[in-house]
Amino acid sequence: MSSNWGKNLKISIFGESHGEGIGVVIDGLPCGETIDMDELLAFMKRRAPGAHRASTPRRETDAPTILSGYWRQHTTGTPLAAVIRNNDTHSADYSNIATVARPGHADFTGYVRYGGFNDIRGGGHFSGRLTAPLTFAGGVAKQILSRREITVGAHIYSATGISDTPFDPVTVTGELLREVGAKPFPTISQKAGEKMSDAIEAARLELDSVGGVVECAVTGFPAGIGSPMFDGLENVIASLMFGIPAVKGIEFGLGFEASSLKGSQNNDSFVLHDGKIQTKTNNHGGILGGISSGMPIILRVAFKPTPSISQMQHSVDFVNMTQEELTIHGRHDPCVVVRAVPVVEAAVALALLESMLGQGKI
Amino acid sequence: MSSNWGKNLKISIFGESHGEGIGVVIDGLPCGETIDMDELLAFMKRRAPGAHRASTPRRETDAPTILSGYWRQHTTGTPLAAVIRNNDTHSADYSNIATVARPGHADFTGYVRYGGFNDIRGGGHFSGRLTAPLTFAGGVAKQILSRREITVGAHIYSATGISDTPFDPVTVTGELLREVGAKPFPTISQKAGEKMSDAIEAARLELDSVGGVVECAVTGFPAGIGSPMFDGLENVIASLMFGIPAVKGIEFGLGFEASSLKGSQNNDSFVLHDGKIQTKTNNHGGILGGISSGMPIILRVAFKPTPSISQMQHSVDFVNMTQEELTIHGRHDPCVVVRAVPVVEAAVALALLESMLGQGKI
Amino acid sequence: MSSNWGKNLKISIFGESHGEGIGVVIDGLPCGETIDMDELLAFMKRRAPGAHRASTPRRETDAPTILSGYWRQHTTGTPLAAVIRNNDTHSADYSNIATVARPGHADFTGYVRYGGFNDIRGGGHFSGRLTAPLTFAGGVAKQILSRREITVGAHIYSATGISDTPFDPVTVTGELLREVGAKPFPTISQKAGEKMSDAIEAARLELDSVGGVVECAVTGFPAGIGSPMFDGLENVIASLMFGIPAVKGIEFGLGFEASSLKGSQNNDSFVLHDGKIQTKTNNHGGILGGISSGMPIILRVAFKPTPSISQMQHSVDFVNMTQEELTIHGRHDPCVVVRAVPVVEAAVALALLESMLGQGKI
Amino acid sequence: MSSNWGKNLKISIFGESHGEGIGVVIDGLPCGETIDMDELLAFMKRRAPGAHRASTPRRETDAPTILSGYWRQHTTGTPLAAVIRNNDTHSADYSNIATVARPGHADFTGYVRYGGFNDIRGGGHFSGRLTAPLTFAGGVAKQILSRREITVGAHIYSATGISDTPFDPVTVTGELLREVGAKPFPTISQKAGEKMSDAIEAARLELDSVGGVVECAVTGFPAGIGSPMFDGLENVIASLMFGIPAVKGIEFGLGFEASSLKGSQNNDSFVLHDGKIQTKTNNHGGILGGISSGMPIILRVAFKPTPSISQMQHSVDFVNMTQEELTIHGRHDPCVVVRAVPVVEAAVALALLESMLGQGKI
Repeated sequence: MSSNWGKNLKISIFGESHGEGIGVVIDGLPCGETIDMDELLAFMKRRAPGAHRASTPRRETDAPTILSGYWRQHTTGTPLAAVIRNNDTHSADYSNIATVARPGHADFTGYVRYGGFNDIRGGGHFSGRLTAPLTFAGGVAKQILSRREITVGAHIYSATGISDTPFDPVTVTGELLREVGAKPFPTISQKAGEKMSDAIEAARLELDSVGGVVECAVTGFPAGIGSPMFDGLENVIASLMFGIPAVKGIEFGLGFEASSLKGSQNNDSFVLHDGKIQTKTNNHGGILGGISSGMPIILRVAFKPTPSISQMQHSVDFVNMTQEELTIHGRHDPCVVVRAVPVVEAAVALALLESMLGQGKI
Repeated sequence: MSSNWGKNLKISIFGESHGEGIGVVIDGLPCGETIDMDELLAFMKRRAPGAHRASTPRRETDAPTILSGYWRQHTTGTPLAAVIRNNDTHSADYSNIATVARPGHADFTGYVRYGGFNDIRGGGHFSGRLTAPLTFAGGVAKQILSRREITVGAHIYSATGISDTPFDPVTVTGELLREVGAKPFPTISQKAGEKMSDAIEAARLELDSVGGVVECAVTGFPAGIGSPMFDGLENVIASLMFGIPAVKGIEFGLGFEASSLKGSQNNDSFVLHDGKIQTKTNNHGGILGGISSGMPIILRVAFKPTPSISQMQHSVDFVNMTQEELTIHGRHDPCVVVRAVPVVEAAVALALLESMLGQGKI
Repeated sequence: MSSNWGKNLKISIFGESHGEGIGVVIDGLPCGETIDMDELLAFMKRRAPGAHRASTPRRETDAPTILSGYWRQHTTGTPLAAVIRNNDTHSADYSNIATVARPGHADFTGYVRYGGFNDIRGGGHFSGRLTAPLTFAGGVAKQILSRREITVGAHIYSATGISDTPFDPVTVTGELLREVGAKPFPTISQKAGEKMSDAIEAARLELDSVGGVVECAVTGFPAGIGSPMFDGLENVIASLMFGIPAVKGIEFGLGFEASSLKGSQNNDSFVLHDGKIQTKTNNHGGILGGISSGMPIILRVAFKPTPSISQMQHSVDFVNMTQEELTIHGRHDPCVVVRAVPVVEAAVALALLESMLGQGKI
Repeated sequence: MSSNWGKNLKISIFGESHGEGIGVVIDGLPCGETIDMDELLAFMKRRAPGAHRASTPRRETDAPTILSGYWRQHTTGTPLAAVIRNNDTHSADYSNIATVARPGHADFTGYVRYGGFNDIRGGGHFSGRLTAPLTFAGGVAKQILSRREITVGAHIYSATGISDTPFDPVTVTGELLREVGAKPFPTISQKAGEKMSDAIEAARLELDSVGGVVECAVTGFPAGIGSPMFDGLENVIASLMFGIPAVKGIEFGLGFEASSLKGSQNNDSFVLHDGKIQTKTNNHGGILGGISSGMPIILRVAFKPTPSISQMQHSVDFVNMTQEELTIHGRHDPCVVVRAVPVVEAAVALALLESMLGQGKI
């Protein structure tokens, strides 16, 4: 089992990188919601390869076909299924890695898990390409939230050791979130973005790759959504976020930094502001006890560097049990983080929609 | 909904800090497993208050009574229920916080979520006390894993800005894990532990608190457990871990640090060792593509400082909508991390047992 | 795994007939609901043994203790746990059946399933006694529904080949449902009830037992609750109903009888009545396409005769693999149906509450 | 939410009768299983329309395209997705029923449930056509079971008041099950089948329809699969079976008939047979306490008559709130039961595979 998620909003993702097609079934969407297809395709394009030199030159139109659940410009309330056909596949590129495990990839673990039966071409079901249907689903969720004045946005918080201006956890606005998302290289600081972009290009020329951190914020999310213990917003978001390949960490609010503070430094005082309860600071990242506080939700997701690099690496042929030298050809993103920004937004949007549906709030 | 978790191993936790009792129902345990009650109580005692000056002086015997699912010294295979009665409750300590939100606590968010009906005494269902049944369940899981040569152990990785010696992700042994766990102040370095302990005491005397990071390792876990996307080991562990109060972040392997590395630095080469496939380094923390690699599983969990501090704080009365000054009396841990170490182990053990059961491996 | 049910309203039932205690955790109840304890105990008493000569003379006070989730006379919204201690247990009665399978019981199948580790005393977790916590949970659900003008009631439709007056599927009222439920022997026709009662007594004197059918109706349930395919009301009710021991069949509306009709006979015409849409007849039992139609919900549940009879029976010792003659002593209901009436109501109430919560309708 | 089912074997069905396409994602299939495509298509053809005069003349090739999860003639272990395009749709046939509720259909309840947004053409997501992907999934499950000597088969037990020879619950064989399934009109008795067929044709000529009962048997299913209470085989099978349109009842073993028997008549004696434990009779239908006994599993499913009949009917326009006369043109099965036989087999196969996977038995 692997690719089902959710209780009230159920998503079922399928497909392999070089198979017939990939897609998603979304069950539990509210009925009567319009999907702006141009906006959805623009959102998916942010994830699509080829938009930036930091991404793989593989070109997929990634155009989803909706098979069900959408009629007369509205969601029907019954399962919405979308399929993306795989077109531009070069399976030959992967022929020599059939049994030599690529370091940092799931070739070996997938082999053990599935007894050698899983489709390994292009990473198969483990491929980052599977984030396309996730982004589709999240794009639908984003629009549903947006209609309720809830904005989800993200930027590259850091990459190659260079940091962008972080979101201000108290004053971040939906406008800023939309503005950053519209950029081809989504950083708040133009200068930081250029530096990162140059450093990524330098890594690419060294046949290497880099990692990074994506920061996501949500504005307009109402207080009182979520639950203590296992259905908290942090649990729900994290359970989805680790479904994105290369994610190795997640933190909310100050996160790991909070662990070195004192309570008097970390606690956020409550204040009355225009007759509404807010916190003066927002170290808690908008979530207390698993439940939203009404302050912006803030989280950061750590991505490891793309494991596919074109330098020679040492590895093992897991079928023939021999030590091997491996050089990966293929086409790969030198930095997965650029394209990961909308995927993180998608995961957060889905998690929040799920939590709101679970409380009958949508 | 809040306190149910799991697909194959289902745990249902109930209770409030100052109510009649707290407990857990564990459904899906394999039958025929012996529970060493002395070992289980010793494990739970590591979480219990009063064991160390860093913890609240509230004394709970925390003795669980097993009501079902255990007969003639073996699990029956049917639901195992355990109840812990609440004895030493001082509800009066909390009387003045009934409507003034304690900063960093879930008083306000819980009020919005439950419309003022939730039992707020001692934090109610949000209390850290609810980790006692979680620890009970995890202690049972640990023994079941241990019988299969799988050892789960944790230590205080850092607190008050002081760091312990980290686990070596390649050479860490079950012996070390058991040894650290047996210490009253669970650090690998005695000296680091003493420094932390002093710094915690200093914070306590300043009526303040501190946070910290718990690092957990698992040895002996077989390769091939877990799944891509949403049922990956990282997803499953994270979905449970954020159920522990005060957790604000989680990372696997190098985690956030990997985000600033290059692929050539972060990738772990595969090597043949005694005819078995291993990785030379273990930056991936034993999990690739959501599936175990056979290397030690390594993860770190960030805890914010205990929000209950005895210094005066600014807050809001969320019923009367007035600005207030708040001084929390009560009895509180100046550092929640010391007692959190076995809770993290418990969560990891439950997540791993769940994943193994899901694949019919136990 | 066995005793967890539900998505939005999760119930986790635990316990064995002769163990320490039995109980239930209910997660997902709406907050702020008052429970009338007298009414709840009266409802549970309808299921308790000893109320009628048709039931086992075993006397359990069956008084549930609420451990959590209820405070200041209201549900808190966090898990509600209730425990019933086992007092009046005569385990010796069952000593000779330890390894000789009682015909019609789960002794043999449970032995295979749990490898001989399950607690077999009094039927263990398979015992009809486990319907006490189910009835508790259902009693709470009934009160929550009742507050919304939804009434769930049942009667003995048939037993010993004698039939009661069936519910009129169009005109049945909440008053009638409450009236029948209040009777010690719940039949609409006094005369039919007396005949059944006599026939049950006659069977008891012959050391035999009888089965029967319980019919349940729900009035006031709004149209539009439920879903096509797998989350339909029929699916949800059935998935819970077969959790009651001895249930071997369920049907909705005309059920099996509809299978021998023609479409022109079975179809219910829609009519306008006081400006509301109704059906003229109600052969569909209030559910079309898995979704409520606003007409009374009608269903019937078939119970096999109590398998515990005191006549000599042929069986096998499943440990020693020998053919044996078996005479069951113990105390048993000659007809399980009398006490099953409130259990069926409980299951229906839980299923309906689950479905309403899933759509945010409560 | 509607069309997701399962814990270990998850199926997610999507589509509307006259939309782009219908399909299913099956997650959790064991890896390394070969699918005999000819056998699968032959199985699906038994459900397809046009095979018998008793079925609608609508001709769908119903050829599923597998998009993922199947590679080199084996299941990969990752989600298997299959899509069936809708070709032969005559949406105009349904134009006049857009707002006048067809009696016995979900037009009105679907309208209330989805606020008028659901695709109503041809019944939309409520259409019997959605059983095609269910049959596909069940066909895969049947082959996996068959490889383990488990045979699932069904026949028309009764229709139009005419009964077929029932399965002998003790001596039924896999050979018989396969033989009956291969017939175009699946009855054991040729003569009974002809009579039914004639009666169905007579009903069709009267512009009417008939219902019927499908009986299903499973041979070779091992003892010890299932669980007490809510994960019993009966619960799991029933929760799936009511997902088939027109199903109004289900019973196991003697079912409703058992309710009028005495315990001494209904109890099945255990006997030793060739060193194995069996029961002499099989009134329990192979399931005791929710767990398989090793005897053939026997169940019957009641289908109401096809609600679409071409006679004039009285109904209501639920948008304009007017009383209307309705004559349904379109193309409809006069008896849904003939094509339902493989669908029942599919549902049973999926439920059994789910239960075996849940216990790690496959």
